[in-house]
Amino acid sequence: MSSSNSITVRLRLESRPGLLAEALKAVGDQGGDVGAIDIVRADAEHTVRDVTVDTRDEQHAERVVAALRTVPGIEVQSWSDRTFLLHLGGKIEVVSKTPVRTRDQLSMVYTPGVARVCLAIAADPAAAWNLTIKRNTVAVVSDGSAVLGLGNIGPYAAMPVMEGKAQLFKEFGGVDAFPICLATQDTEAVIAAVAALAPGFGGINLEDIAAPRCFEIEQRLQDMLDIPVFHDDQHGTAVVLAAAFLNALKAIGKRAADLKVVVAGVGAAGTACTQMLLELGVRNIIGCDRGGALSQARTDLNAAKREYLAVTNPDDETGSLHQVLRGADFFIGLSGPNLIGADDLKAMARDPVVFAMSNPDPEVDPAIALPLVAIMATGRSDYPNQINNVLCFPGLFRGALDCQARRITGGMKLAAAHAIADTIPVEALSADYIIPSVFDPAVAPAVAEAVKQAARADGVARR
Amino acid sequence: MSSSNSITVRLRLESRPGLLAEALKAVGDQGGDVGAIDIVRADAEHTVRDVTVDTRDEQHAERVVAALRTVPGIEVQSWSDRTFLLHLGGKIEVVSKTPVRTRDQLSMVYTPGVARVCLAIAADPAAAWNLTIKRNTVAVVSDGSAVLGLGNIGPYAAMPVMEGKAQLFKEFGGVDAFPICLATQDTEAVIAAVAALAPGFGGINLEDIAAPRCFEIEQRLQDMLDIPVFHDDQHGTAVVLAAAFLNALKAIGKRAADLKVVVAGVGAAGTACTQMLLELGVRNIIGCDRGGALSQARTDLNAAKREYLAVTNPDDETGSLHQVLRGADFFIGLSGPNLIGADDLKAMARDPVVFAMSNPDPEVDPAIALPLVAIMATGRSDYPNQINNVLCFPGLFRGALDCQARRITGGMKLAAAHAIADTIPVEALSADYIIPSVFDPAVAPAVAEAVKQAARADGVARR
Repeated sequence: MSSSNSITVRLRLESRPGLLAEALKAVGDQGGDVGAIDIVRADAEHTVRDVTVDTRDEQHAERVVAALRTVPGIEVQSWSDRTFLLHLGGKIEVVSKTPVRTRDQLSMVYTPGVARVCLAIAADPAAAWNLTIKRNTVAVVSDGSAVLGLGNIGPYAAMPVMEGKAQLFKEFGGVDAFPICLATQDTEAVIAAVAALAPGFGGINLEDIAAPRCFEIEQRLQDMLDIPVFHDDQHGTAVVLAAAFLNALKAIGKRAADLKVVVAGVGAAGTACTQMLLELGVRNIIGCDRGGALSQARTDLNAAKREYLAVTNPDDETGSLHQVLRGADFFIGLSGPNLIGADDLKAMARDPVVFAMSNPDPEVDPAIALPLVAIMATGRSDYPNQINNVLCFPGLFRGALDCQARRITGGMKLAAAHAIADTIPVEALSADYIIPSVFDPAVAPAVAEAVKQAARADGVARR
Repeated sequence: MSSSNSITVRLRLESRPGLLAEALKAVGDQGGDVGAIDIVRADAEHTVRDVTVDTRDEQHAERVVAALRTVPGIEVQSWSDRTFLLHLGGKIEVVSKTPVRTRDQLSMVYTPGVARVCLAIAADPAAAWNLTIKRNTVAVVSDGSAVLGLGNIGPYAAMPVMEGKAQLFKEFGGVDAFPICLATQDTEAVIAAVAALAPGFGGINLEDIAAPRCFEIEQRLQDMLDIPVFHDDQHGTAVVLAAAFLNALKAIGKRAADLKVVVAGVGAAGTACTQMLLELGVRNIIGCDRGGALSQARTDLNAAKREYLAVTNPDDETGSLHQVLRGADFFIGLSGPNLIGADDLKAMARDPVVFAMSNPDPEVDPAIALPLVAIMATGRSDYPNQINNVLCFPGLFRGALDCQARRITGGMKLAAAHAIADTIPVEALSADYIIPSVFDPAVAPAVAEAVKQAARADGVARR
């Protein structure tokens, strides 16, 4: 039951006592959750009302509406899906910071006045950081090849996600972000397009680009450009996971160097998460794909996976995910739903920690896992410990823009992870609270400040 | 003297009667025009005031400040250029249409709710027109190769112009426009980049791209894309010039077919203006470049100029601009300052019309021309009849977006020109009033409606 499946039904009810109650009972009988009830208009014979109902999914919504239609004296005039209503015409707009309603204003923001500003930038391109939107603006770029858990749905269908991301950038970081969905999934063409459109931006947030292309695209763009290029699916996830990892270690009292960590899913996110765990001192990480543990015996590994193997699995363990999970301290899932079960969890080390981040369905059912593990985190909001990238990217780019960083370094990502983790005081830590709420207003400013300091320490800040 | 060169000077004045008057006299003696005077703070001994002064240019501003420094009892604490102040941090921002402050809101605009919207678009890409910003959003794209009259100043220095254009799109047309300045001036790379970034947009406004590359870039992009691609320097100028031309003909009582028209400058704008004049029934147009009239005898013409010549100069007149201007009814300047003089104007036909659109300095000094011509128009706001593209592009794209047009046809441009011209009733037409004010609120809606109807008539409207 969730607002993301909320509908508003417009009902025309005959004016007779008890009819509204019958309508609400019909909704309740179908398991719908009634919210606001507004009167649209009323006369002697009829009342028109808008009734908002939270439902589980589209099929459920249709059953609720069908039930209302069967109530005598009630006419369903229309019904609408609130999530779709919210998306009509898109979710963001571009507004002027200054009015342009008089000749004087026009002559300052546009010709002839603007010419002097242009010439100042032509004489000193660094002035673009002060005199244009570059200072506060990030491009959110996707090729639509790996959108959410939906796969390769293309640039048009990816736009709502990128628009939503732009909203979150503004809401949590005060960053102006603009969505750009590319009509190509060719690596060279994506790189060329992003490099071409970069001058007006202070940073590039790559989003929902499939592995392994995402690695080359990010790396080569960062080598070409003098602004941060950050593939959020990799590093945003890794930063927030690292924050949860740091607090989980404090809560269970283990040391990074002693751990056995199994990572299911070695795509974009899994690779970046593994890299950060190595930087945090973990020595024994075993990556698994559909073929089981990445090991020397495997002959089917692509270049990215061979690189992954080179820095992981020091004991060269082999076998299935289930086999290598035996005795592990951490399970980190970045792959798909329902990969492991109760037996797997029981075979892990004492105080096992499970980060099951597949969305919407985790790698293991929380109902099964919660009784068997010390700590569990997921990507969902309806269980404790939600690992959500929005804890990272707004503050990270806020900090990077404020110091005009040239790139995002490993030090900046670690600083962001520690900043997120440290927003929870040690005495407040618990199995249910290792990661702050996405709405915690302390997070983004703390991340921004930490990232800025790290950028300066790493020598990539312009100011 | 203009607001585009307006400065604000912060003065600390000793508290003695008459000192402010001395300060204002110093400004006036230098020819500065005093505007607002605000008190910042005051105590028994001093008063701090911000004095706003309109000046002619930067040198003039510096002379005004220097004069203030010489007044005993006055300290100039700081001074700032209001146009630069207005550009600090850029002129536009990206804002969310809906708040994202609760879990419910987050779940509708982003995951998990957004997934259903994505899937709806994946199933029917045309739904992107309803469920994303595409419906109301235009990219303003430049490669910085021909910015205003400033030339090839590159993408960073071009940004303030494109941001200003985005402001005008919103202010006059309610269109969300986002500036994209490209890091390449290679024709193939520009085409590839714009085609790649197009999916999220409902139209592409190309801007300040040098001729002859602009012709190929626009044509090939329009052939590739199913949204309007419109090079404003060409067609926006042509539409507004055509509107002025239509009203000038009414005012002087001549017929298009009888005219001799000389066009100075056959770059992007000159070529598009010539095309529209031909469509309006002009038969005898002679284009001139630095080498004089384009004629069959010329062996130095590039492909674009040979195409131009093929449809113009039916009598194959040869010689300099001055020579072919003899007996002409219209002079249309889209080139550079001070090309012609009084003798040229005197040699034109009776009731000569001069549209001298070079900015900031027209092809002929208005002080010289005004006594000698029937009608004069320029690109400037400080003379009557300003030919300004802002009369066209906001309404044109408003209309194109509202009917989801696939392209901008010749019919849509003509409709826009007539709509602009017709906002002035025939009885109100005069030599000083052939073109409406850029602030006339009737213009954009009239253009939008006319463009929408023409799009439907031409079969390029989706709705």
